[in-house]
Amino acid sequence: MKKPYFYFEIIHQSLKSRARVGRIHTPHGIIDTPNFVAVGTNGTLKSLDNVMLETLNQQLMFCNTYHLLLHPGPDVVAQAGGLHTFINRKSPIITDSGGFQVFSLAYGGVASELKSKGQKTQCSSVISIKEKGVIFRSYRDGARIELTPESSVQTQKALGADIIIPLDELPPYHMDQRKLKKSLDRTHRWEKRSLDEHLQDKKQQAMYAVVHGGINKDFRKESCKVLSKLPFDGFAIGGSVGKNREEMIDMLQFTMPLLPYDKPNHLLGIGDLPSIQAMVPLGVDTFDSSHPTKCARHGHLFTSQGTVKIIQQRWKNIHSKIDATCTCYTCQNYTASYLHHLFKAHEATAHTLATIHNIAYMNCLMVDYRQAILNGDI
Amino acid sequence: MKKPYFYFEIIHQSLKSRARVGRIHTPHGIIDTPNFVAVGTNGTLKSLDNVMLETLNQQLMFCNTYHLLLHPGPDVVAQAGGLHTFINRKSPIITDSGGFQVFSLAYGGVASELKSKGQKTQCSSVISIKEKGVIFRSYRDGARIELTPESSVQTQKALGADIIIPLDELPPYHMDQRKLKKSLDRTHRWEKRSLDEHLQDKKQQAMYAVVHGGINKDFRKESCKVLSKLPFDGFAIGGSVGKNREEMIDMLQFTMPLLPYDKPNHLLGIGDLPSIQAMVPLGVDTFDSSHPTKCARHGHLFTSQGTVKIIQQRWKNIHSKIDATCTCYTCQNYTASYLHHLFKAHEATAHTLATIHNIAYMNCLMVDYRQAILNGDI
Repeated sequence: MKKPYFYFEIIHQSLKSRARVGRIHTPHGIIDTPNFVAVGTNGTLKSLDNVMLETLNQQLMFCNTYHLLLHPGPDVVAQAGGLHTFINRKSPIITDSGGFQVFSLAYGGVASELKSKGQKTQCSSVISIKEKGVIFRSYRDGARIELTPESSVQTQKALGADIIIPLDELPPYHMDQRKLKKSLDRTHRWEKRSLDEHLQDKKQQAMYAVVHGGINKDFRKESCKVLSKLPFDGFAIGGSVGKNREEMIDMLQFTMPLLPYDKPNHLLGIGDLPSIQAMVPLGVDTFDSSHPTKCARHGHLFTSQGTVKIIQQRWKNIHSKIDATCTCYTCQNYTASYLHHLFKAHEATAHTLATIHNIAYMNCLMVDYRQAILNGDI
Repeated sequence: MKKPYFYFEIIHQSLKSRARVGRIHTPHGIIDTPNFVAVGTNGTLKSLDNVMLETLNQQLMFCNTYHLLLHPGPDVVAQAGGLHTFINRKSPIITDSGGFQVFSLAYGGVASELKSKGQKTQCSSVISIKEKGVIFRSYRDGARIELTPESSVQTQKALGADIIIPLDELPPYHMDQRKLKKSLDRTHRWEKRSLDEHLQDKKQQAMYAVVHGGINKDFRKESCKVLSKLPFDGFAIGGSVGKNREEMIDMLQFTMPLLPYDKPNHLLGIGDLPSIQAMVPLGVDTFDSSHPTKCARHGHLFTSQGTVKIIQQRWKNIHSKIDATCTCYTCQNYTASYLHHLFKAHEATAHTLATIHNIAYMNCLMVDYRQAILNGDI
């Protein structure tokens, strides 16, 4: 029997926790889970080219539809033969719907929104949010752009990622419960419309639902229930899951068992080290985050001895690699002292080498997590 | 008989011009001439790591003593085992004396100085210029630093480049002839002191003199005469050689025949494409310039069809490589359309890929020049 182009295998289920080791099969290869997903917003990680990235065993890359819609536009990518060809990546890619950026521009990020106590409700870049979709202004040239469930899916069809995401609304942390419910219901309708659009011509793509409900457990439960009934290929967890890690863990502990067990799941936008450590035992399969690459550009390097700030004077004379156990390109070729120097001298090369190191670290870390689950340690 | 650690072979002398093909043998390998020298001020090219650079057949790299003196300092580099080990470069390196930066900070670059008509004579970073040497303030932390012929050479000994440069004064283009002569005489005394310091312990380094005299041919002739009598391993041409390419060509036509024929020569700080084309027939062996890497970061890509501005809209839909004849890493892996997109999206990856391309172009170009001389075409 011919295997489907997309399917999920659970290799091992921990007896100690909800952690599991799995394999997501896609048209561009396998994603071992649990795994970290690197963010390449514009079709590249910051400071690192895609051919170099593939040498780091980065199995899944996250590209942002919002940015690629504004530049170079889906037509250019389609003419190139799709995103994989355009950016020269052979391994799997996931794109989001574009909604996250539209709404995070409208409401601000969670952090800035928490600071403003929710007073900033809508900024000028979003012109209107209606049943049909959202109208916003391009941050590039001020052009008026409409994003609907159907247009988001069509854009993602043109991009051609292995995994795509339906249009959702990202409600702010401080939204009142009545408005949040209204947003949730509309998001469910948008996701259904996205799925319908997708199912008309799958083009060997898989679509993950996005579970919402903010920090209201009843709403989260309802969202899991509504979306689980639809033939999505996987389930992402989106929206505000809490104002701090404790709230997030509590919400994930509640939500994870409500998701279909046999489908892969993805935690959107979370990928710092303590969160991954907390979430793997809850059964989260994939995590995307720009945190490791951002840290790299700030000279915060992940090591087996913890995160080191390479700009500190203590590294000036350390003529060995940052992490004795690391075998990445950066550590194979350059010392802590040289990296310290490159950061102090504001050389862009520092960003590339640090990014290589942190991405290599993340991928080794995820191998270790998978092994620990297989060994019965998690 | 044991070969010396540094020597120059002339493989072929053109019958049409002064152009020649040669080989500079150094402790870290051969430099084929004529050749382009990439500038890696702080021990790295901008946006490109040294291991990647070595794959581009970049035979000689120029590092700046001024910058490395201020950070990380010669002690750190020496503790690392020298510059080659510190920056992980296996091929030859040349360092300058540090004087150029001290004086270009004092007088401004040629361009800005030409604009100011020489009214800017000394900025606050240079505290004094005396017979002993120059005292200046670090641009990093304001520290008072003395640079003498002896200290410059000792710094360059600690760095350990294959080719080093004696301390010279860089007089401004508009300096009056009396002052210029005074500067020239002092530069000659500084170069002699630098050479004496070097000869006390060569440490397998070669020292190139720097011919000065500004745009005064009598002074240039005198400089060649004075310096040719000293046992330098090669001869660099420094100082202002003209306010435009015509003046420069005229001065080089005059100066080149006055240099010892059997020693390698180097044109300091000039490496744009038309200048190289004009200077190769005059017998210039090596050229250093940050021009190709600067161009790269501005999206000016060198191709067999001329320089292209990749940011222009016409590249948006060109789904083939920038230059059909190019086999560099960038052209092997990425299309013009993708590079255009990366520049438009302000991605640092664009700088790295463009730098790879321009450096690869320069090294192929120099192979072509050498072949053209061998073929009797130049």
